[in-house]
Formats: sequence, structure tokens, C-alpha cells
Amino acid sequence: MKKFNPRLYFITDSTLYEKDEFLRRVKAALDGGVTLVQLREKERTTREYLELARAVHDLTLKYNVPLIIDDRLDIAMAADTEGVHLGQSDLPINIARNIWGKDKIIGATAKTVEQALEAYEQGADYLGVGAIYPTTTKVKTILTSTEMLDKICHTVPIPVNAIGGLNKDNIDVLKGIPIAGVCVVSAIMKADDPKSAAEELSKAVSDKLGIM
Amino acid sequence: MKKFNPRLYFITDSTLYEKDEFLRRVKAALDGGVTLVQLREKERTTREYLELARAVHDLTLKYNVPLIIDDRLDIAMAADTEGVHLGQSDLPINIARNIWGKDKIIGATAKTVEQALEAYEQGADYLGVGAIYPTTTKVKTILTSTEMLDKICHTVPIPVNAIGGLNKDNIDVLKGIPIAGVCVVSAIMKADDPKSAAEELSKAVSDKLGIM
Repeated sequence: MKKFNPRLYFITDSTLYEKDEFLRRVKAALDGGVTLVQLREKERTTREYLELARAVHDLTLKYNVPLIIDDRLDIAMAADTEGVHLGQSDLPINIARNIWGKDKIIGATAKTVEQALEAYEQGADYLGVGAIYPTTTKVKTILTSTEMLDKICHTVPIPVNAIGGLNKDNIDVLKGIPIAGVCVVSAIMKADDPKSAAEELSKAVSDKLGIM
Repeated sequence: MKKFNPRLYFITDSTLYEKDEFLRRVKAALDGGVTLVQLREKERTTREYLELARAVHDLTLKYNVPLIIDDRLDIAMAADTEGVHLGQSDLPINIARNIWGKDKIIGATAKTVEQALEAYEQGADYLGVGAIYPTTTKVKTILTSTEMLDKICHTVPIPVNAIGGLNKDNIDVLKGIPIAGVCVVSAIMKADDPKSAAEELSKAVSDKLGIM
């Protein structure tokens, strides 16, 4: 059954750490209460991506947190994860849905109302919209205004998450916008203490945004 | 039904040409008699790889020549090609077989008897073995001796192709080894006249290697 909670969606970045430290940080984030995890790898071979996906999946399964694989449906299927996230440069949503079936979580990235509607009509289960703030985790960042985010939230009936440079201190800007949650990379991944960082973010999402 | 003839297996390299010229060359190779085509892309996004796969598949379907996608099972499934080729850094053969089913062509790369046996036992339909000669199409080339190629041919009951720097003038070295065919990239891709190059290679495969 497809069930997921996107309120605190942790997107990983393994490029900064050795594998053991990376996995320790993912586990700490799960201990701190992240509700959804995405593995995002751009530089690895297929075999390496698969092996890391399996290692992270071993962790997320213990916490009953769905694991989403960025871009690669082949890796998601091979590791039998709960979902895949498809950006505008990845497979079309409807193609992935046809191949993988209706019970899997398929997320999409949207920066405009048109992209949001198309993804929804093609069968996306949630949208990531941003970047709200500049971010260091992508080579080029195209910013999306909070007005656009709000508009997208009011256009599609699926959960919409905000993404891009978000942390516990700057998410106030999202107040009043009916998002389902926030996506964070650096705020947890690079934190001195990823568990505390996740806990503080979780509290901020409740206190500042009213997302329980 | 799974049916393929690997006697003249053309592996593409789109990095040297604009899309139109690339497709023109693939069509010329088909006109010249290549019996199997592999699309191999390393630098493209998933969406770009898929779009190119569809364009090449439109061509190969007209010639009733199977199209194999290198590395990416997701692309192969999305473009509904006839097969996928999986190297040692790609998905394990048995995983791909389980996902995609028994009717699809799944090829593997092997450089040792152990790798060849493992690929065969996991369900590979054919093997590519090499590099017989140094090649410019891969960043690092690890050479495989003709003795090893011969040994692999006598070890596994599936078709084995030789690969790596092969052209019509140097395939004599393969004479007497029970290969099923040759894989070529540059000898066709970079030829002044890809159609003639394919025709001449086809003739050499018959005349010099006795593969009809």
C-alpha cells in the first residue's frame, strides 16, 4: 500500500562522506524523525548506486520510512524501494507509472504551474517545488518564488513540498502556504549532529508551519 | 520471441556528431548490413537518453534489427527496446532478468572465465569479450587476450562476441576462435562512408572468420 508522509523529507548527498559516515548520518536523521528519505546520486556507476540504495534501504526499512530513489527507475526497481523521484530531465512520470505500477510512490519536480499540472495528470504522487533559496547541492539553481509555490499548491490536489536551501531558521517564509512538508539536504546532511538537526527541523515544521 | 544475430554488432557513439548526422550514420550502418545495434550513452540525462533511444529504435525497427541499450534498464524498458547490455559496473544480470522477463535480450561483458560463467549462470543471452585491441572509445581499456577469448567461447554455451579496436583489416587474429560475431564502434561510426564500412566488415566476417 502506498503511504507516505512528506512533512520532513530528507534528501541525501553522499559525496561529502565516506560510506560508513554517510550511513551513520542517514541513520541519525532517521533517529531524529525524518519522515521520508531520498537517495540522490549523480556520479556513481549503476552498480555503486544500487549497492548504496540497498544499504540505505536496510536502514529506512527498520524505521518504516519510505525510500525514494532519485532519477533512476532501474535502481528503484532493482533495490525494490518504495518510490522514485523524477525531475524534468528524467523519465516522464506516465512512462515510469506504466512500468512500475500504481502502488509505488512517484514524485516529480515542478517549477511552474504547467509542469505541476502535467506531472499530476501523468500520475505523480507528490511534487517538489523550488528552489526557494539558493542551494549549494546543485550546480545551477533556478529559484522559484513563494508566490509560485503557493499557486502550485492551490492548483494540484497532491502533496507539494518546498525545497531549496531550507533550514529551521528560514522556513518562516513558507508560513501560510499549504505545503505538505519541506525537503532538506544540507540542513541535515552537513549538520554537526544530524539527529539534533532533524529533531529541530521537525519541531520548526510543527511550530512555524503547523504541519504535524 | 527472442531472436538475434550478433555476427556484426554495431555499438554507437553519438558524442562525435549532431543528432541528425548521428541518426544518418546509424541508418547507413543498417543499410550496410549490421545485424545488431547497441546505443551506448554515458553523458546524457535520462530524458535525453530516452529520446535518442526512441529515435534509433524507430530506425532499427524498420530493418528488423534488435536494439540493445547499454547499462540502463530503465531506458530499455521505457523505449521498449529488444534488449539491454550490462557491464560489470551495471545492474547484475539476474536482477535485470527478474525485472524484465525471459523474452528480452540481456547481454553481458566478461573479461575472465569467472565473469563469463557468472553472467551465463545469471541468465545472459550473449557475452561481449575484449578489448582485443586498444580502443579510443573508452577512457581506460583493459586488454583481453585471444587465448582468454577462446577459453571463454569453449566455457559458455551462449554466443560470444569479440570487441575492442576491431576492423576489417585486423579481425584475422580471431580466426579459428568460435566467436559468434564482432562488435565494432569506430570502424563504422567514424568511417567516411558508414554503409560501405559495414558492408566491407560484413564481407570480412564471412570471408576471414567464416561467420555467415
